[in-house]
Amino acid sequence: MRNWILPEYIEDILPAEALAIEVIRRRILDRLLVCGYQLVMPPMLEFVESLIPSNDSNMNLRMFKVIDQLSGKMMGLRADITSQIARIDAHLLNHAGVTRLCYVGSVLHTTPSGLNRTRELLQIGAELYGHAGLESDLEIQKLMLQCLIISGINEIYLDLGHVAVFRGLINGEKIPVELETELFGALQAKDTSTLKELCVGAKKYMGKVSQQAFMLLPELYGDRRILIQARKLLPDYPEIRMALDELGTVATELESSVRALNFDLADLRGYHYHTGIVFAAYTNNSPNAVALGGRYDEIGKAFGRARPATGFSMDLRELSRLIKLDSRPKAILAPYNRNNKNLNKKIEHLRTEGEIVVVELSKYQNKKNTLGCNRKLVLKNKIWEVIDI
Amino acid sequence: MRNWILPEYIEDILPAEALAIEVIRRRILDRLLVCGYQLVMPPMLEFVESLIPSNDSNMNLRMFKVIDQLSGKMMGLRADITSQIARIDAHLLNHAGVTRLCYVGSVLHTTPSGLNRTRELLQIGAELYGHAGLESDLEIQKLMLQCLIISGINEIYLDLGHVAVFRGLINGEKIPVELETELFGALQAKDTSTLKELCVGAKKYMGKVSQQAFMLLPELYGDRRILIQARKLLPDYPEIRMALDELGTVATELESSVRALNFDLADLRGYHYHTGIVFAAYTNNSPNAVALGGRYDEIGKAFGRARPATGFSMDLRELSRLIKLDSRPKAILAPYNRNNKNLNKKIEHLRTEGEIVVVELSKYQNKKNTLGCNRKLVLKNKIWEVIDI
Repeated sequence: MRNWILPEYIEDILPAEALAIEVIRRRILDRLLVCGYQLVMPPMLEFVESLIPSNDSNMNLRMFKVIDQLSGKMMGLRADITSQIARIDAHLLNHAGVTRLCYVGSVLHTTPSGLNRTRELLQIGAELYGHAGLESDLEIQKLMLQCLIISGINEIYLDLGHVAVFRGLINGEKIPVELETELFGALQAKDTSTLKELCVGAKKYMGKVSQQAFMLLPELYGDRRILIQARKLLPDYPEIRMALDELGTVATELESSVRALNFDLADLRGYHYHTGIVFAAYTNNSPNAVALGGRYDEIGKAFGRARPATGFSMDLRELSRLIKLDSRPKAILAPYNRNNKNLNKKIEHLRTEGEIVVVELSKYQNKKNTLGCNRKLVLKNKIWEVIDI
Repeated sequence: MRNWILPEYIEDILPAEALAIEVIRRRILDRLLVCGYQLVMPPMLEFVESLIPSNDSNMNLRMFKVIDQLSGKMMGLRADITSQIARIDAHLLNHAGVTRLCYVGSVLHTTPSGLNRTRELLQIGAELYGHAGLESDLEIQKLMLQCLIISGINEIYLDLGHVAVFRGLINGEKIPVELETELFGALQAKDTSTLKELCVGAKKYMGKVSQQAFMLLPELYGDRRILIQARKLLPDYPEIRMALDELGTVATELESSVRALNFDLADLRGYHYHTGIVFAAYTNNSPNAVALGGRYDEIGKAFGRARPATGFSMDLRELSRLIKLDSRPKAILAPYNRNNKNLNKKIEHLRTEGEIVVVELSKYQNKKNTLGCNRKLVLKNKIWEVIDI
């Protein structure tokens, strides 16, 4: 076997791209920090039960497992960082009021989760705990948009959803859990024929209006006019009315920051928790969302402390592919002479100013290879000067 | 089971320490970059054969394994990044001359490898390929010392060794591989009684001088006088003479930068490769080395391209524990009003200047909890001003 071959969907990141990732990593992290989000670093490995607090079978399949040699128990390699942050909020910090946390780190997936996706992501994100109002939703959404913009993503298409619409329909009728799960599955898969079958076959559980409403959900996708349509066509439950009002307010606040804003009332991400607004940001040349987020209240419940929670995350590796960063600055080539104090002082000075100075080691002097440098250090009238190559 | 409990030797890093790690991560990485080391990011996961190119059984035991669901083959979670960088030099970059690379990333160990050690390290390091002379050894050693100093480690104790001493003794006699392995094991474990037994029992393979020399190695630990002693007591093979000369030169170059400099001629790290000088840096209050490195020529051989190589690495998590960083800067508390343009402009301005501004969300206003802020934003004569709390 040729041992330099990597597994599929696993890759090395070479200098130009690695530097671009580092640059946007710092820009985003700095933004999160000045907005009061405190950095935490949860581990790569935890017991499986800790990483899948909600019994999410999808997450379970996506997660690599290893045996802990110290306890004999099963550990997982995190496939997402969000629940780890909820654990930290619930158990380690235990503040009474609002807690803002941010993170950046690798996550691994057993199989790639979308088009062109890698199995190793570099996830960065922010979470806000302890506040249930729309102000915190807006803070998180605006922060996500800022992070995309400072990374160089200018054309943002924002999709907004609200899980309370589907939940309102479920709660409005006496729908058994099995049927709820099936409806949920069909909606998530945008499988309209199964959805229709389920609704038609469930006459005894729901009235005509609800039947129509469930079948309508996948079509409720589009610009602001969707909200008017939804108000007209969906049953007038308080839960649904409030959800549509919230979406309207968010749209008014954010529409000037994005290229286009769409509503998707069949987006049910995070339905396993009690949730509110969910959102996803897209840009040109990428079939996948570049950032995802939403309100996942009670995500900390499994850790003994249910709190309101909203947050977002993105993959720095995916993000860096979409950005043309004028990244690698050109370097200065310097001769090697460990006893020349003036030379070494000049090199140190240039480096302190942020210049890249590459010292040419003896064996390779006078070679044509200039190691990617566009300038060099030469002695002129007894003074070391930088000149173009 | 209480699902918020972490496995042993696995931990969360909370805000104060996380920020300290981020600060030294950037300082070190910036230093490596301006010295011409290009950042690369190898993956967390690779096929086992790629991660253990040299058949190192110790490394094999230390590495978590998982099955690749896409190929059915065994993958490992990297327990060290060095060999990955060698693979990148050998296969992806393939420059003819000197290549300088740096990296930072998580590594995982099945069991903790030393006193107080975690099983998850944040490894940062630099490697220099394609140059075999002492200049590159010195460049790497000086760079390591600089990285420690800019991280805030002031008292550095440097240990230097040279594998050519042991190798010279082995090559000077016709010693079979099995005995070489046993001698190597006894020396690494500093197990002098086994070492003595082996030497006494191996009369037919080695002369009296070599016997004495092998038994002497564990005692050749101490300051510069050790080199004089070694020259006197070890056989005068060219390989050993050159090794002692190199150690002398390095000592002269580095002694002004460290608190103390020691030689350890029984340090055989990386003996599996053809190697030269190895080194380890220690500081107060830590039983473990804070940085390790050395010349591991031919580390890329298993990937089809044997090149001279020297480098160093350290664990940012261990490092941050030893440093008292005046880390978390105090924040400014600001009221929430999304329609007040002047207020929001002021907040943005402060954040652009690097201040942390925490917005107080409605429900929590007028509470005593000031979220770790020492100043607040108030309206005075129609102007938003920062005042102490």
